[in-house]
Parts: sequence; structure tokens; C-alpha cells
Amino acid sequence: MTARRVLVTGASGFLGSHCLTPLAERGYDVIALHHARTPFDVPGVRWVHGDVMDRDAMRRIIGAEKPDGLLHLAWFVEPGKLIADPSNLTWVAASLDLIRAFREAGGERCVISGSCYEYDWRYGYCSEDVTPCEPDTLYGAAKDSLRRAFLSYCSVSGLSGAWGRAFFMYGPRENPARLVSSVILSLLKGVPAKSSHGLQVRDYLHIQDVADGLVALFASEANGPYNIAANAPVTIRQIVELIGVITGKSHLLQIGALPARANDAPLVLGDGRRALNDFGWKPKLTLEEGLSETVEWWQLHADDAGDRR
Amino acid sequence: MTARRVLVTGASGFLGSHCLTPLAERGYDVIALHHARTPFDVPGVRWVHGDVMDRDAMRRIIGAEKPDGLLHLAWFVEPGKLIADPSNLTWVAASLDLIRAFREAGGERCVISGSCYEYDWRYGYCSEDVTPCEPDTLYGAAKDSLRRAFLSYCSVSGLSGAWGRAFFMYGPRENPARLVSSVILSLLKGVPAKSSHGLQVRDYLHIQDVADGLVALFASEANGPYNIAANAPVTIRQIVELIGVITGKSHLLQIGALPARANDAPLVLGDGRRALNDFGWKPKLTLEEGLSETVEWWQLHADDAGDRR
Repeated sequence: MTARRVLVTGASGFLGSHCLTPLAERGYDVIALHHARTPFDVPGVRWVHGDVMDRDAMRRIIGAEKPDGLLHLAWFVEPGKLIADPSNLTWVAASLDLIRAFREAGGERCVISGSCYEYDWRYGYCSEDVTPCEPDTLYGAAKDSLRRAFLSYCSVSGLSGAWGRAFFMYGPRENPARLVSSVILSLLKGVPAKSSHGLQVRDYLHIQDVADGLVALFASEANGPYNIAANAPVTIRQIVELIGVITGKSHLLQIGALPARANDAPLVLGDGRRALNDFGWKPKLTLEEGLSETVEWWQLHADDAGDRR
Repeated sequence: MTARRVLVTGASGFLGSHCLTPLAERGYDVIALHHARTPFDVPGVRWVHGDVMDRDAMRRIIGAEKPDGLLHLAWFVEPGKLIADPSNLTWVAASLDLIRAFREAGGERCVISGSCYEYDWRYGYCSEDVTPCEPDTLYGAAKDSLRRAFLSYCSVSGLSGAWGRAFFMYGPRENPARLVSSVILSLLKGVPAKSSHGLQVRDYLHIQDVADGLVALFASEANGPYNIAANAPVTIRQIVELIGVITGKSHLLQIGALPARANDAPLVLGDGRRALNDFGWKPKLTLEEGLSETVEWWQLHADDAGDRR
């Protein structure tokens, strides 16, 4: 695999923004696509404005920039709406058109971000070769659908392709409405943070670890689906309590004050062995390290939380 | 289900053209979309020109015609190329955008044609609730991918949706390069018809039976995937030999003169019980009746075979 010039979609987003430096540090010529959000300076990265939904614009950008690599991370994101929003269909469609346009303009290597939502959560433990992909949300079905068509296209077109499944993420620039951000922001403001019983076991990673994993996958010759997972169980309650300890505001936690979601899966945990075996990646930060770094970041940035997604 | 005004895509194609009369006979107001091919008179059917790939045009047509039903049959078809052509990706994308545009303009009922190629053929017997969908062709993966996203969208959007899987088809207006057409045309011209050993067992239906099945599915309230299948095994050899008997040209058959395709599945047979149970459909024509009718049609139309797809 010799892709050197990589187009990153969703580059200004939560996940994308954390991929830029690792890509530049590996020596890639990084073309970062932004649309709704304002770009920010990253050494070695060149920003290009464009909308993945605009087929003509994407063909123009690909024709002009001639990337041989594509890291496609852009997707509809809005907490609470993501799971069932009809935009998920539109993102599958735009992604398929993008993949074909990229390949037919000479693209060689493509990695797309998938999700643990592709798996059937009734199985709990999510292992690439074993756990069935039978999602019960539109978001999961859309990612599952895109992956199936994408990987099949790779096998007939000669495009080198891999699919990195993110699990649960937290860290700098996360949408303030999400669990970790919202608990941190409440405690930093000195207001109570309510949560459910928190006994659900999940697979949580600091966003920089997820981004490093996707970049490592991109830089490898691995093909097919890969979990980018912590491979370590943690309860929501443990996360919330740890934030309380780190901020010194445990007394503001109101665990159990909110009802648990109906049918919430008791366990969603990713098997990380395939990524470790095939391209030598595993996460670096412990939960304590990751949460401490995130609290520090929010201490500096709490005021602009309203601008972030 | 009360859809009365149905937009049919691919209406001038092999399958679509056979759906128009059954729809009109059931009292639907039929809007038949055509693009590459010239329309032909069908009582009760109104033709509209438009390209499913053109999102703006489709939104205009849907806005102007206000269909509450959509029977989406259009797809890339070119014998030999269908299985691996990159256009399959583009058809998934255009179909997803069409489905969303239809629903958001008030559409109520949508049926899409799927394929036995969605199934993992190593299982041979294809039953909706049992046989895994793990296609090994891009065409199969594309249909599989579209179905997964479509049915998930139905469950969150309230769109009533079903998916009718066609198996192997023959009949009037079939592409002359396909098995049944090409054997008939060779024998009618008095030239030898070469085939492989023909021991593969398949599920073959006359196109009018498949079209009637899709229309019955559309008219029902059934949701989810349905085989539109013969539910009866036949070998390729039996089909070829029957054409020899019907045309009186058995001496021109050269069975075994061509090599069999590598890894050709020994058995592809559809379970028809779900369609029979849920909306009371089963095929009407025997293989003898269907092939005889097809031979008669080609006796009248052999001269314009070059124009047909």
C-alpha cells in the first residue's frame, strides 16, 4: 500500500479532527475536507471546503487534488437524532457515490469509519468474525449497509479497503450533550449531574486512541472490518464516578436519578484482537488518563461548549 | 394499505413491462417511468420520462404526480456485466435517495425488487427467515445492502415496505443473450445451441408469474422480504431439452459442449411458503406452458431481438 495523499472527510468533526495530526506525522499529504464547521490550523494539513452530498463538487475536488487515499469519516451527527434520522439513508447514498468517484479517479486505499451499532447487541461481545451484524437502529443499518456494498466493491474493483468500527468515545471537542462531556460540564459548573443506574457495561475509548487506531488501519494493508475498541469492560457508573473523583465534585453526582432506557443492552464490548494481530494497534490511554485529560481540556474550553458538536 | 397511485420505475424493462397490466387491472392509477427505452401502449397506464439517477428530476416527478405507491424495479442490467459492474453501487445510492424523497413527499407503500443473489448460495435452498444473506457478487451485495437500509428506514419512518426477491426468469422481452432466449433463438434460426452439462438445479419462473407476484405483494399489507419463487426445482438441462421438444429442434441441442462455470452453485431454489401464507400468491404457469408461450412470442418477434434488452 503506497497511498501518500489522503483526503479526509469529516475532518473538522470530533473523530476527524483527531486523525489529522497522526496522519501528518506519518508523512501523508493531508487534504482535510470541511463543510459546516470552520477549519483550524494543523501543521502539515491543507483544508478544502466541500460538501460530500454535492456529487459534482466531490468529483471536482477529487479531480483537482488527486488523492490516492481516502479516509471517509463524514456522517450526520446530532446526539439523540442520529439513531433514527432519515439522513442516514442519504449518507449511505453519498458515501457510495464518493467511493466510486474516488476509485475511478485512480484512488488506491480507502478506510471508512463504522460503528459498534452494526452488531446485534443481544450478543453483547462484538467480535468481527463471530457476532452477527443485525442492527436494530437505522444508524446501525445504514453503516452495515454501506460496509457490505463497500467491501464487495473493493473485492471486484481492486480498491484496497478497510472498515474501522468505533465503539463509545469521549474526549476533547465531544458534543457537550453526550454523556462524558455533559457530566464533566455539570460538575465544572457546580450543578448536579443526573444519570441512570449506570450498570450497563460498555467499551469506551478516548477519541485520540480511536483516531490513532483508524490511522494505523489506514496505513496498513489490512482489508475488511476491524473493531477499534478498548477491549476492556467498564460500567457507565464507573465512568461517572471517576469524573467525580477527578473533578473533586463527587457530591454532585446523582446516580440513579434518571430512569434507565428501556431495552438498553447490558453489555456492548469490542473484541480488539483482530486489530492487534493484523496491524499491531491497541489503545494507549487508561480510562483515568483519558478522563483526566478530557477534564483538563473542558476546564479551558467550557465557555465555548455551545459552539461545539 | 390504500395506495392508489403507483409510480413504477423500470417500467419499460423486462420485469417492469409485465407489471403494468396487472397493476392497471387491480385499479391502480399507474405512472410508468421510462428512460432509455421507448414506451408502448398499455391500457390504463400513463408514461412519464425520467432518470432515477437524476435526483432533481425524480423529486419533480414525485412532486407533480404525487404517487402514494412506489414499485421500484429499475436497475442496471446487462447480461454478463450485471454481477460485478460498479454501477451497482450507484443504483443503491440512487434508490436510497428515491425512497426518502418518495416518503417525504407523502408516499405510503413501497415495494422493491430484490434477487436470489442476496442469499449465500452455498446453502442452496433459499428461505427468508433461515438462509443467510451473504452474497458473493457485487450485484448481490448491492441488493442486500439496499434491502437492509430500506427495511430499517421503513421501520422508523412508518413507510409500509416489502421486498420481493426474484429468482431465475424467462419469457417475452427477455434479453436475447440470456439462457432461455438464446436457446430458443438458436433453434428457431436452425443453428446449434451449445450449453454446459446443465445439471445445476435452479428456480425458474415465467416473467408474468414473477410480475404477478410482485404486484400481489405490492397490493398486500405484507412487510419485509419475500421470495417470488417457483418453489420447484428444475435443471438447466430439463429447460433446454423442453425447448428442443417444443420447437421440434432437439437435434440442434449440444448439451455439454460448453464448460460449466467454475464454482457454479449446484442448487438455487426458493422457498415459496411465506408468499403463499402471507398474501396468497403462487405461480400459475407450468414450465411447459411458460416455455411454449415464450417460444410462440419469439416466433413473432425474433427479427427485433437486436433491439431488446
